[in-house]
Amino acid sequence: MVPRAWILSIGNELVLGQIVNTNGTWLARKLTLMGFEVKRIVSLPDSEQEVVEVLSDALRKGIEVVISTGGLGPTYDDRTSEFIAKAIGEELKLNDEALRMVEEKYRSKGLEITEHRRKMALLPRTAKPIPNPVGTAPGILVERGNTLIIALPGVPREMQAMFEEYVEEILKNKAPRIERVEAWIHVEDIPESTLAPIIDKVLRRYPRVYIKSHPKGEELGKPMIKLYVLVTGFNKDEVAKTLNSVVENLEEELIRAGAKISKEN
Amino acid sequence: MVPRAWILSIGNELVLGQIVNTNGTWLARKLTLMGFEVKRIVSLPDSEQEVVEVLSDALRKGIEVVISTGGLGPTYDDRTSEFIAKAIGEELKLNDEALRMVEEKYRSKGLEITEHRRKMALLPRTAKPIPNPVGTAPGILVERGNTLIIALPGVPREMQAMFEEYVEEILKNKAPRIERVEAWIHVEDIPESTLAPIIDKVLRRYPRVYIKSHPKGEELGKPMIKLYVLVTGFNKDEVAKTLNSVVENLEEELIRAGAKISKEN
Repeated sequence: MVPRAWILSIGNELVLGQIVNTNGTWLARKLTLMGFEVKRIVSLPDSEQEVVEVLSDALRKGIEVVISTGGLGPTYDDRTSEFIAKAIGEELKLNDEALRMVEEKYRSKGLEITEHRRKMALLPRTAKPIPNPVGTAPGILVERGNTLIIALPGVPREMQAMFEEYVEEILKNKAPRIERVEAWIHVEDIPESTLAPIIDKVLRRYPRVYIKSHPKGEELGKPMIKLYVLVTGFNKDEVAKTLNSVVENLEEELIRAGAKISKEN
Repeated sequence: MVPRAWILSIGNELVLGQIVNTNGTWLARKLTLMGFEVKRIVSLPDSEQEVVEVLSDALRKGIEVVISTGGLGPTYDDRTSEFIAKAIGEELKLNDEALRMVEEKYRSKGLEITEHRRKMALLPRTAKPIPNPVGTAPGILVERGNTLIIALPGVPREMQAMFEEYVEEILKNKAPRIERVEAWIHVEDIPESTLAPIIDKVLRRYPRVYIKSHPKGEELGKPMIKLYVLVTGFNKDEVAKTLNSVVENLEEELIRAGAKISKEN
């Protein structure tokens, strides 16, 4: 079975509709490429009830990987560490390694450790800190049952650097070994409802293929659709061969239906 | 208690990290302005298990409003209607009103009703269709216990038109009594692309504020834009104060960017 992943994007600004959740999308693509199946991306307010509820739900379902972003900073509403501790039933504890990371960051800037800054080193008792090469707040790594919980900051630059430098390596133990290839086909001149039975037909022929149509609106009164084709599998040659065959098949059917097509790889 | 809302964004492309969930953010702001508390925005795959699970969870918790986007079209993977039926324990049924809406759309284009197109009129037995003034797939409105479930298409233009023309009116019964104040600002001499980051900045500073720019074409070669500003809240004085502050803020930034402005209340 493919290991599942949930992404939790924590922050009032997300559920108030003030900012778009680009962190969730970035992580979803990274996890998908690694072979995980992202089952949910959940934007949540900085609320104990909401975050603990979703974390507990993930633990109950044994979701293999849960990655959160947001709520790790020094301010009063940064409470993700506390929420994780609550969800796994652990005390918060000053983590020596995390404290060293935080102290080093501030000392290098000639700044003192304050109460607010020390707060960033308070982790659930069995958690490990993840270094933050860009900002100050360390990430959090903790395992409970079948579930690996990883908390990263909400600042995209920090989150991305930490994921690529540390988290990807950590996740390799949980990820399956898979091969993936994909292609995009631009389709013009036929409506989505004409496309539907063509996709159905091709999908019935190939079991390990994913096809999704993205309507791009109309240009000069002609429908424009982008077709995404994804093939995954455990054998590289087979996956490449399948993609070629699927794309050829689709193009043939589309042209017969009167579409104008162009490819993009 | 403030009525709660969950937003469900359905589509494999979201959890595969192929597209950012802008629909969720747009709806979150709209619902916030109406006085709802958005507790979750959940991106989900086109998967029966996942969608039914989250819908059932919302029903169990008595969440007042659940709005979904995506999965209403004619293709094989558009199954939101089926998922809702399952979650509320109803049969799918060909809805006469929905069928009329769909037929009308295709007839006006000289197209026949096919099996795939008829599928868009299959609704849960007690559901009502919501007209789609832009595309072909009707929305779905159904109530169960304390929860109002509203399903809209994933194409942003369609979703937004349906929300503004029909859903807002429907939701007024569930929304708390809120205060609304609005203002118009005429902006001259700067293009919309210069305006965009200024609006973004102000929006990030004020959560219960909605700003919409209406380009009014060019006069004597100079761009003219009308800015609509809406502020909502639970306290009359506070709302008025916020509007003043937002308008002042906007004017300051606009003048700094080289715009000529005039107000209208």
